[in-house]
Amino acid sequence: MAELIAKGVFRFGGDIRAESWASAAGGTEGQGPLRDCFDEVHSDPRLGCESWEKAESELQRRTLRLALDKAGIAPEDMGLICAGDLSAQCTVSTEAHQELGVPYLGLYGACSTMAEALLAAALSVDSGISVRSAAVTSSHFSTAERQFRQPLSYGGQRTPTSQRTCTAAGAAVISHTGRISVAGGCIGAVTDMGIKDITNMGAAMAPAAADTLLRWFTATGTRPADYSFIVTGDLGKVGSVLLPQLLEREGIDPGGGHRDCGVMIYGADEDDPFDTHCGGSGCGCGASVLCGHFLPLLRDGRAEDILFVATGALMSPLSLQQGGSIPAIAHLVHFRRVRT
Amino acid sequence: MAELIAKGVFRFGGDIRAESWASAAGGTEGQGPLRDCFDEVHSDPRLGCESWEKAESELQRRTLRLALDKAGIAPEDMGLICAGDLSAQCTVSTEAHQELGVPYLGLYGACSTMAEALLAAALSVDSGISVRSAAVTSSHFSTAERQFRQPLSYGGQRTPTSQRTCTAAGAAVISHTGRISVAGGCIGAVTDMGIKDITNMGAAMAPAAADTLLRWFTATGTRPADYSFIVTGDLGKVGSVLLPQLLEREGIDPGGGHRDCGVMIYGADEDDPFDTHCGGSGCGCGASVLCGHFLPLLRDGRAEDILFVATGALMSPLSLQQGGSIPAIAHLVHFRRVRT
Repeated sequence: MAELIAKGVFRFGGDIRAESWASAAGGTEGQGPLRDCFDEVHSDPRLGCESWEKAESELQRRTLRLALDKAGIAPEDMGLICAGDLSAQCTVSTEAHQELGVPYLGLYGACSTMAEALLAAALSVDSGISVRSAAVTSSHFSTAERQFRQPLSYGGQRTPTSQRTCTAAGAAVISHTGRISVAGGCIGAVTDMGIKDITNMGAAMAPAAADTLLRWFTATGTRPADYSFIVTGDLGKVGSVLLPQLLEREGIDPGGGHRDCGVMIYGADEDDPFDTHCGGSGCGCGASVLCGHFLPLLRDGRAEDILFVATGALMSPLSLQQGGSIPAIAHLVHFRRVRT
Repeated sequence: MAELIAKGVFRFGGDIRAESWASAAGGTEGQGPLRDCFDEVHSDPRLGCESWEKAESELQRRTLRLALDKAGIAPEDMGLICAGDLSAQCTVSTEAHQELGVPYLGLYGACSTMAEALLAAALSVDSGISVRSAAVTSSHFSTAERQFRQPLSYGGQRTPTSQRTCTAAGAAVISHTGRISVAGGCIGAVTDMGIKDITNMGAAMAPAAADTLLRWFTATGTRPADYSFIVTGDLGKVGSVLLPQLLEREGIDPGGGHRDCGVMIYGADEDDPFDTHCGGSGCGCGASVLCGHFLPLLRDGRAEDILFVATGALMSPLSLQQGGSIPAIAHLVHFRRVRT
């Protein structure tokens, strides 16, 4: 049983663990500053498949397989897969796992989906309906770009606030085994600050991250300095400037532990060698950096605990065409190193 | 804690209940044989909104509000909303609930989403992270038809196996209160029998329903005759013929308790007055008939227990354009009347 601290904020009993994890990235991400942390780097954006969507499925499938292989887990030992991606009707995830015959929950939280999947997987283990559940998400530059923005061959110029959808995936297996505790979480509520610019998602998502963090800190009586790192999924350079401002406005000292996977994956280099402008995005961005960089930090004792706060911009191409603004959501997962 | 019986099959402890529920339907559905069971019938397909998508959001919002009002529950007393719909990136559900400020999990299981949402809501209450959680889903003829098939104004002729996406919504509040127990469930796995015809979803989904039911019956040692009704979401007329055949092939006597919400909502009238050909579909179809017809049967003692098996066809317009087949999934919720 989890302990409910405040609405949407809860602690698990200490026995919910991240047993294994894996990450993979595309060729561009694999040349960035985190290149050595990914388990696999795929220089072929099609991964040998006939479409980018099938390539993203293959990326997600292989990443989960890697996470299982690392811990010697057979697919038939999995009780549940919680998965999602950015594609319409989440077909990438559906296709990725359909041959396993494992119970499957499809989730949609845009770029927040990895945190949503981790919470769903943790819940399933906590309530006892699964002994071992996976959380896995992916994104792919080419599938997302043509869906949400423009045909790739159009070659449109990127605006200053743009983020680049990462070709990347992350997978984690949640069970009662392992040295990293899924200590608690916070399920976010939808916020909408009226941002309508699809090329400025950081501005749309930062308020959601601030809202979820504020609820977490208030309910748990903690502050940013109490955690080794506060890891946002893909606020990018604009959102990463806004988040501490929003926290300070609420009287919270943001401290120095904030890291953004979207900024980290392509680096803060002012020369912007990958032409991203504001960094990376996509539900593979936070997932791959969590599983490639931060969970190993916890495993190796180089961090004590982290708050993984993945944010999602919940628009669709149609909602934007109809003049709608971009609602956003942020879900939080508290990971803690288990001391011997 | 839930009791895990077999992979993906579990029983709750008897204290997870459906506290309140509501249903709503569009004008066409409101003229069908179930017209008297819906709490609201909206003859205006726009519900006063400027787009069909916004109308569907309004439909979902009002239906949840009705479910809350029936039990005197304030929105701020809700710990979690689990919601989904058929629209790309699930924007209908996001917009529907964004003003409530309630923790929100977006789900995608196509027409199976109401069962997925019920299971997620039940899990959240069972694990203690929410005292009271809502499951709510919707579909809308006009939003779905133009997204998945053809522009409405094109007036394409319907094939013999077509189903009509229902304009409908259903909402249920899950808590520890009430006289209907969410006794157990089964999370389905993705199946794919190679069907590529978007106008024959019954054939794609019936194997998923059979797979989930087979796992349930095997794990629980029960058979169809042990339940008052086995309620499928929207197999339609074709899928409803296939399901008993598939069960018989596995040595299971399908019995006489099978009902399909998609067949019921427009009726089995051979004159086909609503020109649906094979009945209704959409994640509002099963949700509205469950909440409008079957949960009241349990409440009033006219049924003892039901298996609600909602099936989803997990394609997207893009996956079909790329020549993909239609994967399907079925999730099962076991509802049982609590005797005094």
